[in-house]
Amino acid sequence: MKRLKIPDVTVHRLSDYARILDQFDGEGIRIVSSDVLAARCGLNPAQIRKDLAYFGEFGVRGVGYHVGELKENLKGILGVTHAWRVALVGAGNLGSALAAYQGFLTHGFIITAVFDKYPEQAKLPPNGRFPKILGVDRIKAEIRRRGIQIGIITVPAEAAQGVAERLVSAGISGILNFAPVRLRVPKHVKVRNVDLGSELESLSFFLSKQGGAPS
Amino acid sequence: MKRLKIPDVTVHRLSDYARILDQFDGEGIRIVSSDVLAARCGLNPAQIRKDLAYFGEFGVRGVGYHVGELKENLKGILGVTHAWRVALVGAGNLGSALAAYQGFLTHGFIITAVFDKYPEQAKLPPNGRFPKILGVDRIKAEIRRRGIQIGIITVPAEAAQGVAERLVSAGISGILNFAPVRLRVPKHVKVRNVDLGSELESLSFFLSKQGGAPS
Repeated sequence: MKRLKIPDVTVHRLSDYARILDQFDGEGIRIVSSDVLAARCGLNPAQIRKDLAYFGEFGVRGVGYHVGELKENLKGILGVTHAWRVALVGAGNLGSALAAYQGFLTHGFIITAVFDKYPEQAKLPPNGRFPKILGVDRIKAEIRRRGIQIGIITVPAEAAQGVAERLVSAGISGILNFAPVRLRVPKHVKVRNVDLGSELESLSFFLSKQGGAPS
Repeated sequence: MKRLKIPDVTVHRLSDYARILDQFDGEGIRIVSSDVLAARCGLNPAQIRKDLAYFGEFGVRGVGYHVGELKENLKGILGVTHAWRVALVGAGNLGSALAAYQGFLTHGFIITAVFDKYPEQAKLPPNGRFPKILGVDRIKAEIRRRGIQIGIITVPAEAAQGVAERLVSAGISGILNFAPVRLRVPKHVKVRNVDLGSELESLSFFLSKQGGAPS
């Protein structure tokens, strides 16, 4: 693998490719042309070739891609051939929903521990088998004991930095942050921010430009 | 306002700037230098100037930005000086959590209608006042009647395209899509995708590169 800086958008598209190849696989398709793969992804074939070129040579000129092979390669690149253990901090409405969200499991991420400031009050949805909610003072010990590698933060904005520091000191180096705040973390820690309000604002920005602003 | 194509990442940063200016405002700070604003945003001042330059001239050389004025300008640009009415389709775990998520409200987005394929079975969390859940066959009529402008899709992947078509035919032109599938929509419709599994995969990608893959 070349030691280039891979853009985040490329990594996201690799996820898309892997998911779409999985669909082809399910449909019994063994080989797919780059045109057909590109069409299903809503991209042009050149973009797919460019994204894949970061990681080596894939596909056969004039033939296309071997569906199963490329899928397994992509999963290897994405690091999802094994399951990852995930801790979730903040068992409010959003945190509870994420704990119950089956989509994580299908991607190979298992929520192994849930923490909350008030573990007695927090409630996870009854449908599903969830770990017992623990107090945030248990973060360090439990994350180490259970070999957890990724943390999800769903606490209020003002508590997020403190939680991030606890996670990092427990050895976590990947954080998915839903709190609307920029976390300060050491360089070796990768943070992905999902700011749901900001996503809606980017829609309202485009609607406003179209003259669709509400009266 | 110049008629340039504004990058999505710029629009996202405008949301960040508005939120951080709001914090300064709350701290009683009236004027902020571009260095201080940049530091709080985790960016360099040149980036902020470049982002703002799409929309006009802001700030006073050698002085900085007027906090309240810039904040109001940004809210106007983002189209969030008024409230937006939002419909949510799919009242499962994730949809219920989003309906209960207070963060949308603070950004000026009000979930005005919730739809589900099985409205009798779906249950919203007891904490909060939510609209009655309606069947998906009511989407078109209710969205028009209530003047809803934005749709959130939290249905399973295989149902998402059909829901998007219903929303578009009801007049919706902004969609926040949580289903892991690319929606095909007319050109005037803006879609933002939030794929939570893919966010985690981008973390596992970086952790794998560090040699932190699970054994």
